Amino acid sequence: MEKKSPHGQWQQVEEDIAEDILAGRLSPQTQLPKEAELMERFGVGRHTIRRAMSSLQSRGLVQVEQGRGTFVRDGRLEYRLSERTRFSQNLLDQGREPFGQAVREEEIAASATVAEALRLPRGEPVYHIVRRGFADEEPINLSDAYYPVRRFPGFDKARRSGRSVSVILAEYGVPDYIRLRTDILVRLPTPDEARQLCQDISQPIIALKKVDVDMKGTPIAYSETVWPGERVQFSIDNTSQLLDALAGK
Amino acid sequence: MEKKSPHGQWQQVEEDIAEDILAGRLSPQTQLPKEAELMERFGVGRHTIRRAMSSLQSRGLVQVEQGRGTFVRDGRLEYRLSERTRFSQNLLDQGREPFGQAVREEEIAASATVAEALRLPRGEPVYHIVRRGFADEEPINLSDAYYPVRRFPGFDKARRSGRSVSVILAEYGVPDYIRLRTDILVRLPTPDEARQLCQDISQPIIALKKVDVDMKGTPIAYSETVWPGERVQFSIDNTSQLLDALAGK
Repeated sequence: MEKKSPHGQWQQVEEDIAEDILAGRLSPQTQLPKEAELMERFGVGRHTIRRAMSSLQSRGLVQVEQGRGTFVRDGRLEYRLSERTRFSQNLLDQGREPFGQAVREEEIAASATVAEALRLPRGEPVYHIVRRGFADEEPINLSDAYYPVRRFPGFDKARRSGRSVSVILAEYGVPDYIRLRTDILVRLPTPDEARQLCQDISQPIIALKKVDVDMKGTPIAYSETVWPGERVQFSIDNTSQLLDALAGK
Repeated sequence: MEKKSPHGQWQQVEEDIAEDILAGRLSPQTQLPKEAELMERFGVGRHTIRRAMSSLQSRGLVQVEQGRGTFVRDGRLEYRLSERTRFSQNLLDQGREPFGQAVREEEIAASATVAEALRLPRGEPVYHIVRRGFADEEPINLSDAYYPVRRFPGFDKARRSGRSVSVILAEYGVPDYIRLRTDILVRLPTPDEARQLCQDISQPIIALKKVDVDMKGTPIAYSETVWPGERVQFSIDNTSQLLDALAGK
């Protein structure tokens, strides 16, 4: 009985195919075998294969193209982390269409974590801006950003206009800024995070906590951004440090 | 019936406490309430609390100190990623005792991935060295490193002597090296990885793929290192880039 449990069966099929994709044995754009072939290979029924496919699709690992078949998705989004990380440019460089959606904006008192990151007294007013980022219409991150109200009065309204953070900060006399520190950790999503990222609550997310500073080193923004663990890969490139070392700096 | 299922119950207790720990509401070193208090708070029996605690312990979130009680573990290991990341120094800087254990050594033909990373023809001989890293006797990572045999003949034997990679490379005329690139991604562990890291197979791991180069920019090592997702946090500090910018470089 246990061996035949349909529950275990479709999960097994899903895991076998997911493993082939995640390990790179099935490359992006590859077409998966037809339903009949998968039924034969796994020795299971049509319903089991469909259930597994539906789950693979909701995990973002395959996409169904009507009339053509099921294909392995374009691998993970590769997101470069550097001292000048900017969401839109990063996506555009990879031929992905960036889009940001305002989820919530509010003025709140800085929590201990936010106050410490922004080097403000605890309780100082900060704008808390929640946004969801998309790559080609697929939800790819969810960010909670905090900006000091005293330094950037009206920042929330400016952000609502749709202008990018870089453009708005320039208007406040901050023509350039640098990512001073990034902390990276893996955890399970909250129910809301899972919903916003269109992923399962049992799938891990990767959380980035970041402090941006102006060119005098004063913190101007603190943010926490969560990404679907299975759909993104981060990269750090130290070529400029190598070039500096080569130049004998 | 369903509501009373002991299975769901202990998992709910575990998740509630895990969430408090992971979100920082229960800080490291905090003692958890006594069993009787937890039984009352969650409205469950002793067995359910014990099952939840045992699972929290195996996830590395709490530790039982015999005769004293159960405590929230010292938070996550914080591991700094920089162009000069060195395992031992990184751990020593945090007051953790580093230890490396040889798991396997072999001479193999470079796979496509390894060859590309090391800029070698595919099939070139490379030393494949698998090691397990410990922090205070707790398994904290598992690394697969690849070194070109032609450039470093006998590297495997030298490594077996227990000397650090930095020391050995210096003997081969590579007094300094830089981490050129790091890719970071989250995935589920293989059964072997889970076993070596003493973690559950359903818990995510964080994988780092790294290329080290000598000071002429020639790749000298490629490695993939996996860490338990719940027990580590990575940090990137761009202070030096800020200082460069301030100095007008």
